[in-house]
Amino acid sequence: MPGPQRYVLTFGCPDRTGIIARISGFLAEHGGTIVEAAYHTDPDTGWFFTRQVVRADSLPFDVDGLHDRFAAVAGELSAESNWQVFDTGRRPRVVILVSKAGHCLYDLLGRVASGELDVEVAAVIGNHATLGGITRAHGIPFHHVPFPAGDPAGKADAFAEIRKLVDEHTPDAIVLARFMQVLPPELCAAWAGRALNIHHSFLPSFVGAKPYHQAHARGVKLIGATCHYVTADLDAGPIVEQDVIRVGHDDSVDDMVRKGRDVEKVALARGLRWHLEGRVLVHGNRTVVF
Amino acid sequence: MPGPQRYVLTFGCPDRTGIIARISGFLAEHGGTIVEAAYHTDPDTGWFFTRQVVRADSLPFDVDGLHDRFAAVAGELSAESNWQVFDTGRRPRVVILVSKAGHCLYDLLGRVASGELDVEVAAVIGNHATLGGITRAHGIPFHHVPFPAGDPAGKADAFAEIRKLVDEHTPDAIVLARFMQVLPPELCAAWAGRALNIHHSFLPSFVGAKPYHQAHARGVKLIGATCHYVTADLDAGPIVEQDVIRVGHDDSVDDMVRKGRDVEKVALARGLRWHLEGRVLVHGNRTVVF
Amino acid sequence: MPGPQRYVLTFGCPDRTGIIARISGFLAEHGGTIVEAAYHTDPDTGWFFTRQVVRADSLPFDVDGLHDRFAAVAGELSAESNWQVFDTGRRPRVVILVSKAGHCLYDLLGRVASGELDVEVAAVIGNHATLGGITRAHGIPFHHVPFPAGDPAGKADAFAEIRKLVDEHTPDAIVLARFMQVLPPELCAAWAGRALNIHHSFLPSFVGAKPYHQAHARGVKLIGATCHYVTADLDAGPIVEQDVIRVGHDDSVDDMVRKGRDVEKVALARGLRWHLEGRVLVHGNRTVVF
Amino acid sequence: MPGPQRYVLTFGCPDRTGIIARISGFLAEHGGTIVEAAYHTDPDTGWFFTRQVVRADSLPFDVDGLHDRFAAVAGELSAESNWQVFDTGRRPRVVILVSKAGHCLYDLLGRVASGELDVEVAAVIGNHATLGGITRAHGIPFHHVPFPAGDPAGKADAFAEIRKLVDEHTPDAIVLARFMQVLPPELCAAWAGRALNIHHSFLPSFVGAKPYHQAHARGVKLIGATCHYVTADLDAGPIVEQDVIRVGHDDSVDDMVRKGRDVEKVALARGLRWHLEGRVLVHGNRTVVF
Repeated sequence: MPGPQRYVLTFGCPDRTGIIARISGFLAEHGGTIVEAAYHTDPDTGWFFTRQVVRADSLPFDVDGLHDRFAAVAGELSAESNWQVFDTGRRPRVVILVSKAGHCLYDLLGRVASGELDVEVAAVIGNHATLGGITRAHGIPFHHVPFPAGDPAGKADAFAEIRKLVDEHTPDAIVLARFMQVLPPELCAAWAGRALNIHHSFLPSFVGAKPYHQAHARGVKLIGATCHYVTADLDAGPIVEQDVIRVGHDDSVDDMVRKGRDVEKVALARGLRWHLEGRVLVHGNRTVVF
Repeated sequence: MPGPQRYVLTFGCPDRTGIIARISGFLAEHGGTIVEAAYHTDPDTGWFFTRQVVRADSLPFDVDGLHDRFAAVAGELSAESNWQVFDTGRRPRVVILVSKAGHCLYDLLGRVASGELDVEVAAVIGNHATLGGITRAHGIPFHHVPFPAGDPAGKADAFAEIRKLVDEHTPDAIVLARFMQVLPPELCAAWAGRALNIHHSFLPSFVGAKPYHQAHARGVKLIGATCHYVTADLDAGPIVEQDVIRVGHDDSVDDMVRKGRDVEKVALARGLRWHLEGRVLVHGNRTVVF
Repeated sequence: MPGPQRYVLTFGCPDRTGIIARISGFLAEHGGTIVEAAYHTDPDTGWFFTRQVVRADSLPFDVDGLHDRFAAVAGELSAESNWQVFDTGRRPRVVILVSKAGHCLYDLLGRVASGELDVEVAAVIGNHATLGGITRAHGIPFHHVPFPAGDPAGKADAFAEIRKLVDEHTPDAIVLARFMQVLPPELCAAWAGRALNIHHSFLPSFVGAKPYHQAHARGVKLIGATCHYVTADLDAGPIVEQDVIRVGHDDSVDDMVRKGRDVEKVALARGLRWHLEGRVLVHGNRTVVF
Repeated sequence: MPGPQRYVLTFGCPDRTGIIARISGFLAEHGGTIVEAAYHTDPDTGWFFTRQVVRADSLPFDVDGLHDRFAAVAGELSAESNWQVFDTGRRPRVVILVSKAGHCLYDLLGRVASGELDVEVAAVIGNHATLGGITRAHGIPFHHVPFPAGDPAGKADAFAEIRKLVDEHTPDAIVLARFMQVLPPELCAAWAGRALNIHHSFLPSFVGAKPYHQAHARGVKLIGATCHYVTADLDAGPIVEQDVIRVGHDDSVDDMVRKGRDVEKVALARGLRWHLEGRVLVHGNRTVVF
């Protein structure tokens, strides 16, 4: 994400002849230098998708100007709300939700601190206080929002507080970094397309609780992790990235938990990067990852 | 499997102190040169497993002599029927069941013909005649046993004929190389621990029919294949080997079918090799693969 | 490669503003329906590359018509000879060169026979007669061209004969499927960009002879295979595809040879498919694989 | 490494009949409960290797008692100094050497902090001060030992200081976590078998400086990382672990650097864990990894 300033256009519309010509013609007309361009036509749904990256200094207007002018093209092509333009000059904001397990948080903070992931972590919110120390050591605010056991009203209050803490940052991504609570439907709706979860199995295998125990009991030879958008349907949201690692008969559940962490960390970090770079276009329950 | 003649001992028993000493002491006592030795203790079930490979010419008796003498040790250790001894000097016999899709059969025949897999393919049996030509080109008998559509009695007859054709070879392995028929329970029982299937998904994801269609609909980012022992519970038998390959949004179902074939072929070939080398010990629904 | 008839355009030129607009505008102008489009700009060399797939029936001319009309666009964009157009309605022709090791040949023939690889294998040529039987069983002509040991003149004659046998088919690809002879420079030149080799190591590790022995001696934990275009500089041609497989301390050189075969087969098969689909664009010693 | 206290025996000797019986007999005689046992015979060198893990509370003596009694067995079997016994009840000590790049350090500290890697990081030493902050935030001493550019004598002094800082902790492992300085021969000798380096290429490809630049120039399709013991021969020490990740034509050198980090981190973390668990036995320039 560092490097020269660029505008990123992501776009989807019903397929028809001439879309690429129309979009690239529009950009060429204004002198836009395209540095990345990806296209995909889905024969099943008849939809067309593209992502274009343009050097900001090659265009005679800013990102809002690009947005205003491109709106006419999008209208012609019946894209409706399926497109957006953003400016890589603005650093994306991320809020991270955690519980007790720290491996994904440590990993993300390390990537941010070493400059690999150029984002502002606006806040980390935990339903346990466990990860407050490392968060603050990185100079990031940590909020502890406890979830009272067996108290539905208290849980609703906790989620309301989390929502307030998250929304005040209008984050580009809300990352559930092994946050072990199921989001209520209204939060899934409010954060649709922005909330990324890491599930510790190769979905759709082993949905729900204790996937490594399930994997051990089934005797699988590979375990995995899945980074997906959160939807009201638990563990069933659009998949952004998956990865696996080999296990054997001599791997206990604890060994699987340990090995699985390395896969969770990279699947989540890749998924988050792609999301923030505008590489992930969701259509129905599937993703295009450019 | 080529190379000098060896005896392979596979063994399982309830764990206790001194098992390795007892078994290795027995072999040392007779001058046995151990060329491979693997051990595993499963803390969950409290079982001990081992596989030992001994140079045949280092022992003063043949494989039957080894079997007879070792029976006393196995008795002491309460192994009951959970052990066997076999001689690598005897070439294993395999019968392959196929339907129309040829990729696994072509792959296995190529491995046999090039000497990589040192087995005797006693027969190939197909419910379609499609793969008769290539089978016979390799000098192997092909039997066409058609399955009448929508005729349960005819199907039972077909399976009875297949059973007869298979059993006359007393094969060490019955390989379902994309044989698209579900084995009846009595055949699962008769061939228990010898019938290997290749399922074209990363089990337990996508059991049943058309797994690549299911995978495409779910939008997974990796597809896989599973080599497992056949049991009466469809696609739920003990897993021997699994592998995966990456797919993306631009892979159609047909692309997945094509990419998946490469994974099916290697998972099946590895599973079969390990089975024939006595590397796979089944305990409950899990396997130890030495 | 099966499916509806399409025209594939591959194209490279020095980068500048408006290339995509020019090419897609040209296609749109003639009503062309683009079903696949990929672009790449290489910041190091300042070159632009694209591959476009157009439905044949959406254009008002045939492939020669497309070629003639597009030549003007290519000229404007200074593409010189770095572009071509081909018709998927014409089945590609392949000639395969082999020695004694059959695994890659078995694999390719199996893919062709099962319809996965829709090519015409015009001939197989071997410097040994070993693989004549399987080739002819597939209904393909086999030519045995022996290489006299320690006889440079005889070798030159053998290569001259091979060249004649190959060139009479004007093949789209010449596949060195573990053909263990080094091509003379004049053949490298004559077949530039069409001759694909599979090297049994993860290049640039272990160039030259006996790479698995080298890998074993070095104690690497992964072995690989490399599919590359043949150039006069041995094992140094542009890389099309590579893959690896894990090995351990208990893998002998023979085990590595066996495991490596599975990687060689898939790397070669993928590289060949991509080459024939026009997915591989060579620039200098690097490839763009769309 | 957590869990009940255990004694780990690692052992190598020239192969002969009865070694397993002798060692397991010794343990059985004293009531030892073996929880892990691995064996390997190398046909090339004629050496035998084993690793045995025994429950501490099953033996009637402590780790020194085990060492003293086993010495006689080792002597009988001509193991000379090729064996050791250690106690998992003692937490291993590690010193980490770094430069400016923090990804491996962040990763290791995260693993330690989250309890995954149960070691004491006695100190971190950097030739730059960059990583002092994060180290101290984890409560670990950081020493900055600058390396004066172009001053051989100053460099020798710096290494002498590093040696002093390292040796006072008598660490079980010295980890070169992207420490970009070449160790002088006397340090290689002093730390032989304890100093682990992570090289950012799939060795033996791309030894020396700027391996990602080399990989990009060669156009490889996979990049890798190698964890190896440090020897006086740069990048040529015994390999403990390697891993790779796929790259494409659209990956710049910077992209390769970023993707490669994920492979470096896991290869180093695995190699370090295996080293500390006594799983890595070095013989000549190769490793046995149990």
